[in-house]
Amino acid sequence: MPVPLAVAMGDPAGIGPEITAKAWSARALHALPPFFAVGDPRSIEKIWDGPIARISNPDEAGAIFGDALPILVIGDNLEVVPGTPDVESARCALQSLEVAAGLTRSGASSALVTGPVSKAQLYRIGFTYPGQTEFVAERCGVASENAVMMLAGPTLRVVPITVHVALAEVPSLISQELIVAKARVTARGLQRNFGIEKPRLAFAGLNPHAGESGAIGREEIDILIPAIDQLRAEGIDAVGPFAADTMFHARARAGYDVALCLYHDQALIPIKTLHFDDGVNTTLGLPIVRTSPDHGTAFGIAGRDEANPGAMIAAIRMAAAQAERRADAAGNP
Amino acid sequence: MPVPLAVAMGDPAGIGPEITAKAWSARALHALPPFFAVGDPRSIEKIWDGPIARISNPDEAGAIFGDALPILVIGDNLEVVPGTPDVESARCALQSLEVAAGLTRSGASSALVTGPVSKAQLYRIGFTYPGQTEFVAERCGVASENAVMMLAGPTLRVVPITVHVALAEVPSLISQELIVAKARVTARGLQRNFGIEKPRLAFAGLNPHAGESGAIGREEIDILIPAIDQLRAEGIDAVGPFAADTMFHARARAGYDVALCLYHDQALIPIKTLHFDDGVNTTLGLPIVRTSPDHGTAFGIAGRDEANPGAMIAAIRMAAAQAERRADAAGNP
Repeated sequence: MPVPLAVAMGDPAGIGPEITAKAWSARALHALPPFFAVGDPRSIEKIWDGPIARISNPDEAGAIFGDALPILVIGDNLEVVPGTPDVESARCALQSLEVAAGLTRSGASSALVTGPVSKAQLYRIGFTYPGQTEFVAERCGVASENAVMMLAGPTLRVVPITVHVALAEVPSLISQELIVAKARVTARGLQRNFGIEKPRLAFAGLNPHAGESGAIGREEIDILIPAIDQLRAEGIDAVGPFAADTMFHARARAGYDVALCLYHDQALIPIKTLHFDDGVNTTLGLPIVRTSPDHGTAFGIAGRDEANPGAMIAAIRMAAAQAERRADAAGNP
Repeated sequence: MPVPLAVAMGDPAGIGPEITAKAWSARALHALPPFFAVGDPRSIEKIWDGPIARISNPDEAGAIFGDALPILVIGDNLEVVPGTPDVESARCALQSLEVAAGLTRSGASSALVTGPVSKAQLYRIGFTYPGQTEFVAERCGVASENAVMMLAGPTLRVVPITVHVALAEVPSLISQELIVAKARVTARGLQRNFGIEKPRLAFAGLNPHAGESGAIGREEIDILIPAIDQLRAEGIDAVGPFAADTMFHARARAGYDVALCLYHDQALIPIKTLHFDDGVNTTLGLPIVRTSPDHGTAFGIAGRDEANPGAMIAAIRMAAAQAERRADAAGNP
């Protein structure tokens, strides 16, 4: 029996429970490997009448998975109101994340898939991380600057080098060291988790037209080109910087395995424009495999049976594929 | 006989002549209205063996258009080397633009379509404008801040509120006044040139997640929301600010007629990701109609018969449609 994946359902008042249940329903269609949900079973029962099985140990998941959605119980006492998060739902989300991450770290689950949480609610209960990525990194003993967030869809992978910071701060935050560090983790992650032997990294410029040789900003000359040169000297296939606006059409995307972008929207606009319903967020640089559907809690549609499970299904499939590749690599002499 | 459109071919060493000729070849397929090229006929003869007819007056174009590509002659003495621009090719491009703009301003052509130019070469001959848009605006007696660049494809229109400036300068350049001014011109242009009675304007936030209520930057609260409120008070249908990364997938695009973006790549990444081969650049706020294919000179493929005329065809079609709408409106009592 293969080791199952753990799916932390996220905020129980969001669409996490619904898309987890819908992913289970589609398990045959999408050839999903056995997984178990981690969270409050009542958040699923409230919005779904399919079969669920409460479990207390991941070992039980494999045998049950064909007939019912296995749920490792957190709480089981919440009065969840879909669309209305509160500190109780945030506590459940955080505990689910913590348990699922711990089980994956210990090897009881083969990979961690995390559902959407409400950062605003988490901050109310004392959560101090910018997001789940940094929390998971810390629980894995990895400094958050060595964990790299990559967004991936069927035709594009992007890494934002800075993430949740005001645009005005971006120019002062990017440095040769930061770019090189993120790129190294990215290249290693694509090799290790995606089986790409020599990943091709393409860098976006910071300024319009990548600065036009310094006419519209100098960060390309002062920071990006030296970083790319350094990476190439280390044997990493790094190219650019390119004008960001011409990097993401189909022919351009064929030329690289991942686009390294300097700020949130430079990376997130193209991936969400192309892969809004099937984009996956994955964390590279961790000792475990971690993925997440690349969307939020969608409180506005929670409980209405309107949520599209496409990204959750893609996140589960990608987690399974990464876990398999790492297991294969570990098994090699 | 309808008044023909003028197509300034841009830099003769770029792909402008080739895509103009290919657009003429596809005139029946795409139901293109009569147009005439403005530029050096030898730049076309060098790379195309179809029929051309040298003309000296736009009046001649209509009768000729069915059988040959009419060219209003500029120069006719260049030794054009495709892919190798120089000051002579830049002079030809600038003179073509000036003549075509003047003919359109005078009514001898119904709209102005401009091919791609090399700004680097133009700067060498003393051109001092950021681009063709500002040059055309000035020749039309419009202050360049009142001319708005809009990029449009079949499924998306975007307006960048700042354009060719370094990213680091963007936060200090955006102001309530600038946003309101650009939005007014945009709304009026969509009414007048596109026949959209009550245009829906959607604004992108500057910061990730549109600032998360001030947690990641305050420009949304301090500048954008007051600007949107002011526009709404004027009766303009303005909404936002929205997280830029979730504005450009298909369902989101259905909710507005134009996305107002705060900087170059925020607007250009989504339009070029979606419409790299058929995006049109059009200038709103002018007394004339002006469009342009939304790509550069592509010197790297000039003269190889590899250029895709899709954007030029789209630019000609959009110019004709805009001109027709304005003529209709002018003819109304």
